[in-house]
Amino acid sequence: MKRILLCLDGDAQPSVFDSVVAIDAGVDHLLRHAGVAPADVRELVHGAMFTRGGEALRSTAVFIGGSDMHQGEQLLAAVQQAFFGPVRVSVMLDCNGANTTAAAAVITARRHIPLGPETTAVVLGATGPVGQRVVRMLAQEGTEVRVASRRMSRAEGVCHRVSRAVSGARVTPHACEDTRCEGLIEGAQLVISAGAAGAELFSQTARESCASLRVAIDLNAVPPSGIGGIAPQDKAVEHNGTICYGALGVGGLKMKLHKTAIQRLFQANDHVFDADTIYALGKSIELEPK
Amino acid sequence: MKRILLCLDGDAQPSVFDSVVAIDAGVDHLLRHAGVAPADVRELVHGAMFTRGGEALRSTAVFIGGSDMHQGEQLLAAVQQAFFGPVRVSVMLDCNGANTTAAAAVITARRHIPLGPETTAVVLGATGPVGQRVVRMLAQEGTEVRVASRRMSRAEGVCHRVSRAVSGARVTPHACEDTRCEGLIEGAQLVISAGAAGAELFSQTARESCASLRVAIDLNAVPPSGIGGIAPQDKAVEHNGTICYGALGVGGLKMKLHKTAIQRLFQANDHVFDADTIYALGKSIELEPK
Amino acid sequence: MKRILLCLDGDAQPSVFDSVVAIDAGVDHLLRHAGVAPADVRELVHGAMFTRGGEALRSTAVFIGGSDMHQGEQLLAAVQQAFFGPVRVSVMLDCNGANTTAAAAVITARRHIPLGPETTAVVLGATGPVGQRVVRMLAQEGTEVRVASRRMSRAEGVCHRVSRAVSGARVTPHACEDTRCEGLIEGAQLVISAGAAGAELFSQTARESCASLRVAIDLNAVPPSGIGGIAPQDKAVEHNGTICYGALGVGGLKMKLHKTAIQRLFQANDHVFDADTIYALGKSIELEPK
Repeated sequence: MKRILLCLDGDAQPSVFDSVVAIDAGVDHLLRHAGVAPADVRELVHGAMFTRGGEALRSTAVFIGGSDMHQGEQLLAAVQQAFFGPVRVSVMLDCNGANTTAAAAVITARRHIPLGPETTAVVLGATGPVGQRVVRMLAQEGTEVRVASRRMSRAEGVCHRVSRAVSGARVTPHACEDTRCEGLIEGAQLVISAGAAGAELFSQTARESCASLRVAIDLNAVPPSGIGGIAPQDKAVEHNGTICYGALGVGGLKMKLHKTAIQRLFQANDHVFDADTIYALGKSIELEPK
Repeated sequence: MKRILLCLDGDAQPSVFDSVVAIDAGVDHLLRHAGVAPADVRELVHGAMFTRGGEALRSTAVFIGGSDMHQGEQLLAAVQQAFFGPVRVSVMLDCNGANTTAAAAVITARRHIPLGPETTAVVLGATGPVGQRVVRMLAQEGTEVRVASRRMSRAEGVCHRVSRAVSGARVTPHACEDTRCEGLIEGAQLVISAGAAGAELFSQTARESCASLRVAIDLNAVPPSGIGGIAPQDKAVEHNGTICYGALGVGGLKMKLHKTAIQRLFQANDHVFDADTIYALGKSIELEPK
Repeated sequence: MKRILLCLDGDAQPSVFDSVVAIDAGVDHLLRHAGVAPADVRELVHGAMFTRGGEALRSTAVFIGGSDMHQGEQLLAAVQQAFFGPVRVSVMLDCNGANTTAAAAVITARRHIPLGPETTAVVLGATGPVGQRVVRMLAQEGTEVRVASRRMSRAEGVCHRVSRAVSGARVTPHACEDTRCEGLIEGAQLVISAGAAGAELFSQTARESCASLRVAIDLNAVPPSGIGGIAPQDKAVEHNGTICYGALGVGGLKMKLHKTAIQRLFQANDHVFDADTIYALGKSIELEPK
């Protein structure tokens, strides 16, 4: 039976990135839908539920993409409301690759430092889709997270949402207007930069003068770097005692996790892959022998 | 040569149901078009006609779906106008599954009672796409059909259209405003309910008090049932002397017919599958040894 | 690795013709995008560039179609701007089949007459997408080209654009309002008609009275013919001493060239197929043993 992936995308043009990854993960047919609103979902998902029965339901799955994570979460809620008890298909949410990229970044950090309560992390550009997921995954590990944005109100919003999703989250909002990150970075062991492409958020000078910093990960692939002095292809490169990764250095794990998650969708008809499950899947992949 | 199905859909999102069935029927590539207007059809169909010649034309076909049967009929007319003599491809019209569902329902009834002039049938919710096709197929068999709708004018419209399509059709319009169906159901042997999802059109009490009724088929899969006391999965279950089918009880034959019709499209380049041809195909499938 | 073709189309409905040809050329998955504007291109193309690395980049390519060649050229420019050095995929521009049809017509003429400076050609309907490409390819061969349109200003525009693309182009604009083509056709050895479907641009009488004419090619497949007395299926048929081709007579080479170009896209990750490269590819195909 052919593997069919129903792709729901809130944007006007459906994601090419997500489609290519799905094909490389072994999907036979993509049913790509763009400009999808929550009100459209029921009819579309019923078409996936009522065409194949029993065991065959696991050969159809739903992927929610697009650039807007908030919209994606609404589509995911609508997908789950369309299910009737066991008559359902597996579904994955990964708007803008946010869940898979965030999980890859956090798991990469975890190779070098523990993520428990003894660690303090700074997330720069924390209000974007990837940044919010990074905060959430770190908070889930018990890490103390400083949530930075240019605007305090947006940083507070992220802390509020993550606190609701993760009980006991230790997250504090910070406004940060320049690349020195003064008063933000002192004492942190980990910094992950998840800001917009082509904008430096943390200067090389500031990074080199932060004695506590052990791991720095920049998720921006478009020059200039989000963290000064880190190149996109850096992968566990040491600069002044700090282990550094660029976007491409994290990208291998992100792609592996993204493809594996797509493949797992077709192993059952009731998977729901969102932040927590994708992060857990990433950790299990990391443990596999190479 | 790969089998290509050009899917023309008048709705803003193309049907997932139709696409999954087409894939399961062996189509290799779907070219899905949404928001299609009659004026768009010529260019699209020429792309199907002028790319493969001779015998290879039968490896391309057109499927017209969407929720609106009237619009679908306009698209079918435009498709046929785009053909040049023998330079054509096969085409199937099945908006909302109306032709295949109606055919499956009527053929199911036919297993239990003759459909000739000796039988009187009531079609509830007869003005929707499925209901209209049920009326048409019954009328073609010579059955006397009572065409019911909440509004008399709409029931009259259906009778008018069916009378034009089927010469000698014995159809009468009825307004029916409550679930007792008084003055509508007396003396009928068959009732088929094709109304909107989740609305009861004929109560259990009324059904049980109708002594003449031998077969009752409810095509609504979403609770509450369209006919009181019939569950979606009922399949030839006897309730008070009446043989009853729910939507899922008819669904197996509908799916088999839908898939078979898609497969037949690719056996010639000049099939036109609409109400009459799909009903005839369903009857021939019914005769095949299991 | 599956072959993926990202199809970018400026029209509201993506081209069916181009999709069928791509499938027949061996493409495994089409990612079809309609209504594409230059501003959409970067994100879409990055999805093609950043999902497969190294050698695997050649398994993804971009095809730009649609009915508007000017728009297509803007999309091609945007595609090329989205590339980062060697991180790129092959791309082909063939709006309305203009490059492949024009190349097939010019190469067909070349079988019968030399296209150097000793030849004078008339291009009728020269301002459409196919006509403009015919003028450009002839000019590149050194042929003297009379560029005809109903409106002088539009003919002048084509001459201007071709002169910019081809150094030393010998092109002159002509206004031509009736099918006698007086003062336009005298002394020409070749005429190619690339006007709108179903409009006669050059009458049979005028053609038969033109003593110098050796080759006449009509690219209009819908009656009446663009050149009087030439049937669509004519292929090297001699009428009054002139070798004549209709649209279908040229169509075989056009289809072969179109498919070959698609296949070549996947042999490297840096092909750019536009007028000159597609014309050169057509000439190399013509030299292959049958």
